[in-house]
Amino acid sequence: MTPTNQKLSTEPYRGTRDFYPEDMSLQNYIFSTMKTVVERYGYIEYTASLLEETAMYRAKSGSEIVNQQTYSFIDRGGRDVTIRPEMTPTVARMIARKRKELPLPLRWFSIPNLFRYERPQRGRLREHWQLNVDIFGINSLEADAEIISVAYDIMKSFGARDENFNIRINSRKLINYLFNEYFTLSEENSYQLIKLIDHKNKMESKEFILQVESILCEKSHEFMDFLTCTDITQLPDSFAQYEGAQDLKNIFDILSKKGILNCVFDPSLMRGFDYYTGTVFEVFDTNPVNSRSLFGGGRYDDLVAIFDAEKVPGVGFGMGDVTIHNYIDTYNLLPQYKSTTKLYICILDNEYISLANELSSHLRANKVNVAVDYSNRKLSSQIKTAEKQKIPFIVCIGQDESQTKIFKIKDIEKRTEKIVHWNELAKVLMEC
Amino acid sequence: MTPTNQKLSTEPYRGTRDFYPEDMSLQNYIFSTMKTVVERYGYIEYTASLLEETAMYRAKSGSEIVNQQTYSFIDRGGRDVTIRPEMTPTVARMIARKRKELPLPLRWFSIPNLFRYERPQRGRLREHWQLNVDIFGINSLEADAEIISVAYDIMKSFGARDENFNIRINSRKLINYLFNEYFTLSEENSYQLIKLIDHKNKMESKEFILQVESILCEKSHEFMDFLTCTDITQLPDSFAQYEGAQDLKNIFDILSKKGILNCVFDPSLMRGFDYYTGTVFEVFDTNPVNSRSLFGGGRYDDLVAIFDAEKVPGVGFGMGDVTIHNYIDTYNLLPQYKSTTKLYICILDNEYISLANELSSHLRANKVNVAVDYSNRKLSSQIKTAEKQKIPFIVCIGQDESQTKIFKIKDIEKRTEKIVHWNELAKVLMEC
Repeated sequence: MTPTNQKLSTEPYRGTRDFYPEDMSLQNYIFSTMKTVVERYGYIEYTASLLEETAMYRAKSGSEIVNQQTYSFIDRGGRDVTIRPEMTPTVARMIARKRKELPLPLRWFSIPNLFRYERPQRGRLREHWQLNVDIFGINSLEADAEIISVAYDIMKSFGARDENFNIRINSRKLINYLFNEYFTLSEENSYQLIKLIDHKNKMESKEFILQVESILCEKSHEFMDFLTCTDITQLPDSFAQYEGAQDLKNIFDILSKKGILNCVFDPSLMRGFDYYTGTVFEVFDTNPVNSRSLFGGGRYDDLVAIFDAEKVPGVGFGMGDVTIHNYIDTYNLLPQYKSTTKLYICILDNEYISLANELSSHLRANKVNVAVDYSNRKLSSQIKTAEKQKIPFIVCIGQDESQTKIFKIKDIEKRTEKIVHWNELAKVLMEC
Repeated sequence: MTPTNQKLSTEPYRGTRDFYPEDMSLQNYIFSTMKTVVERYGYIEYTASLLEETAMYRAKSGSEIVNQQTYSFIDRGGRDVTIRPEMTPTVARMIARKRKELPLPLRWFSIPNLFRYERPQRGRLREHWQLNVDIFGINSLEADAEIISVAYDIMKSFGARDENFNIRINSRKLINYLFNEYFTLSEENSYQLIKLIDHKNKMESKEFILQVESILCEKSHEFMDFLTCTDITQLPDSFAQYEGAQDLKNIFDILSKKGILNCVFDPSLMRGFDYYTGTVFEVFDTNPVNSRSLFGGGRYDDLVAIFDAEKVPGVGFGMGDVTIHNYIDTYNLLPQYKSTTKLYICILDNEYISLANELSSHLRANKVNVAVDYSNRKLSSQIKTAEKQKIPFIVCIGQDESQTKIFKIKDIEKRTEKIVHWNELAKVLMEC
């Protein structure tokens, strides 16, 4: 090790997090909750390398994101590489690569870490983790409804209550029909209107209406009526005939049959400009003082096409760890930290180390997670270590235990003791 | 999406892997096997970001590795950052950062991915995953022995047999005493001798002896005797007195009491030049045609010092996924792939979709992982999809099932059928 004059920083790189054991335990809880739900629906896990060639992102995302927000660099062999900012191009590449062998329809999920170069702020970090859930190879609306059910079930598994979140649903197909056929907007005007709607909440409503009028002229009233509709069955007859509107009605029907009732039609939900081709949805925190989008997704049917392969229809969503962490924190749904270690064996004197080793081997063989304190410190320090590490049970080994093979299991939280013989120890601990 | 003339490659970035579901399943098997063992010994999980500031690696590893083998680049804010090539500097940083709050001794583990820029070859990729297991804050040899036991137990958990691997153990403390005090070598000569021993297997034995003689002169015979000793209890009396030799004897004793007998003393095991300060060990594949090191570790007592913090003694090892994958493959220990999805519901006609949805909701509520085929294809295609995805059971839903609520569970592998009523379905599937 080279001595340095300059003191090294112990902080993690800007916009990233260290996961100390308690943080990691929470992260594992978030991931395993997600994983349990998606596996229940038959999704299977995949992943890929964090590094991809930059060309792929240029082809998919357009140049803006590649130029300003990605971690791109030239490797030592002259290749232009990027640390993935999202998983979708990677999964498209993987499907295109084995298109002929893969048995469609596929239900796939992954929980990758993603990097974006941006100014760190609450809910936005340079590195975050994101559950990606997708069905590939089915056009049926049942798939769209299933994806929304999965999102709903994950929220419920975190303990969220129906009244504390809702699912806003729209259809890009409906929007496209409306804009192109009903309002007969030019491509340019369509684009501007979508952009305007995307920024609706960031402007005065008067200003918004003025700008809508400038695009739609005499049809702007009709459009404003459409935009304020929150029940798909209440859509004006003039719009309700469109295919996209029928699709939405069907999706709401399927979801309602599944008992998912906190869904609303949101004609202003766009989720960006290209990419999505059908259903789009977003899960919102309904907290009146902090209503905000938690995550979302939708149907995109041109996914694999950038690789010059056959089109594969897809529908899915991405759910970030930071946003959901903030949500469950706000609603007091964070689980209490529990060490994965069940028992801490304290040793009164080095002469009892052998016994401690025998006992720990015996317990481990019986699937009890056991740590042994070899520090040779005074007993109170050893117990303090176990307490600070939030290990629930302690056994101390000294002369008595060595002679009798009878042990006291101390429950740290309850401050109780149980006296148990060696032969019963594993069983008693497993049941604690 | 921007149309491109050039066809995009579907290959992963050079030296990295795509994990399709069957690969991912194996990867999860490898990680969960490692995790079960280390948690049994009371190790708790941590992790950190993949990106770190480059200065940290310069301070720890010296400039060679930073200049030639790392993925280092300047971020958009002008910071020199590196994709981690190893986890040790990160864990040292994390401990230094919270040195005062952390309750020592700590047993920590992590399974990070690491990047090194090198020419990809068998067993060496640009990205690999590595279990890192460490105890911090104990000087006792019991900790060294525990770390070796953990390595042993992981090998056994993968199904390895004692005769198919061994654990080679040495002590840098013994080597240092010997070189400095017994042979009274200069620092320069010590360094050269260690380097020579590290390259021993890559040169002719005659050439090796010649070079040893050039350094040790008349003492080279004595040294060669030492180097060929494989039983610590057979060490010449003149060496056996050294503290490092006593330590090794104790470690072999502890391991033997634990029933770990496939350990050998290997005085030629060095594991590089600086860094390690005590026990060093490596686990070897004993296959006579392909004997090679699988992984290793040892004691390093200056870890946290690069951050100008108090010294924290540590002992641990790192175990890569690629090497262990190759090992278990060679010995036919790979588990058979099993989908996490238990049941595939095929639908004979769209009119039975509602029933399929009701049934799948019912089964999911009872913890059965179920996928439903909404593709509206002919039945044989639906069944083929389930078979190709290696989902073990199928239920088909048509008119009969709709009327009677009695279903046939087909076991794809055994080609058997079981007739079960709706009410029993969840129970029967859980027991399959």
